[in-house]
Amino acid sequence: MRMAELSRESGVPVATIKYYLREGLLPAGERTSPNQARYDESHVRRLKLVRAMLDVGGISIAGVAQVLAAIDDHSPTHGVLGIAQVGLPMPKTEVDDEARVWAADRLADIAAERGWDLYGEKDPVEESVIGILCTFRELGHLRLLDGFAHYAELADRLAEVDLGLVAGLPSTESIVESAVVGTVLGDALLAGLRRLAQQNASRRQFGES
Amino acid sequence: MRMAELSRESGVPVATIKYYLREGLLPAGERTSPNQARYDESHVRRLKLVRAMLDVGGISIAGVAQVLAAIDDHSPTHGVLGIAQVGLPMPKTEVDDEARVWAADRLADIAAERGWDLYGEKDPVEESVIGILCTFRELGHLRLLDGFAHYAELADRLAEVDLGLVAGLPSTESIVESAVVGTVLGDALLAGLRRLAQQNASRRQFGES
Repeated sequence: MRMAELSRESGVPVATIKYYLREGLLPAGERTSPNQARYDESHVRRLKLVRAMLDVGGISIAGVAQVLAAIDDHSPTHGVLGIAQVGLPMPKTEVDDEARVWAADRLADIAAERGWDLYGEKDPVEESVIGILCTFRELGHLRLLDGFAHYAELADRLAEVDLGLVAGLPSTESIVESAVVGTVLGDALLAGLRRLAQQNASRRQFGES
Repeated sequence: MRMAELSRESGVPVATIKYYLREGLLPAGERTSPNQARYDESHVRRLKLVRAMLDVGGISIAGVAQVLAAIDDHSPTHGVLGIAQVGLPMPKTEVDDEARVWAADRLADIAAERGWDLYGEKDPVEESVIGILCTFRELGHLRLLDGFAHYAELADRLAEVDLGLVAGLPSTESIVESAVVGTVLGDALLAGLRRLAQQNASRRQFGES
């Protein structure tokens, strides 16, 4: 197909497709004349993956380029998922050394309980969890962390559901796309359902008072 | 205590405290001279609640004023929690009528399965869930909604943990503060733990490939 049709099929404007081509996020089409090229279904799929990572995942252009490079190098799916996950937005918090040690210990305890391997200081997801634990403490709400082990157990159940939904997909590309969309939209969906469940639990608990 | 000490105790700058006084977010202190007033522990507690709602909860000044009015009117705890929850940030999405009907049906099915009462069109939490469901569909990832019922079940488990953590607290004020902090930080904590659990599930599932 020509550029115009690629744009229609993918829903991505022509100017944006040209930008992705320049940034190396989309492989060049097969050249059919000095200023025309032919694209195929693989370009449509790639555009959808790029849009999912940029728009839904909030991953940077550089981050998307890294994920695509890993897919094109035929890196193992687990490795590509890891790269994609690192790009997903997570809150960052400044923490002092004493608080960090305390929070890292709490996280290590939970990881041991759940059988999770941790990567250590540079993993942005672990950094984010450490920052959130420190915020609970700073705000004087340590008591709320009594639910930490329950949360971790429910996170394992969620991850099981999540992986089950993508594991059967045919390519690393489609697994990564579904994982990014499912993780980001899934966070929002779960937050919404949790509030609905809270409303109902609150009505049962406090509705008569 | 005087204004300066209230500022030290609460960690809120004097100028900000004066702003909250003008906006009615903090009751006036007991006047001891034409330009001095005395504050007590109830002012420290109130300041912490205001900060939790503004900074952690992302609730607007007007929203905080509503929650405080409900607390001061001795509204039932469930009602105050409901007002606080409405102010909590949730993603908003534009959806067309056909998509809305489809999503509202999906939500109604899940609510029936979980025994949840729904409020209908004006509830912002329900609106948010409907918007997220429509986004899954628009992006062509309906298959990911196969996990919807699991998510709802896990949301019920989360809400049970959440309510358990705040139910024993002594006042509506402290319950609301803990619920706001726990809901907002809890969303972020759960998102982080879910990613850690995904990393480990992914290693088991795809690590050898």
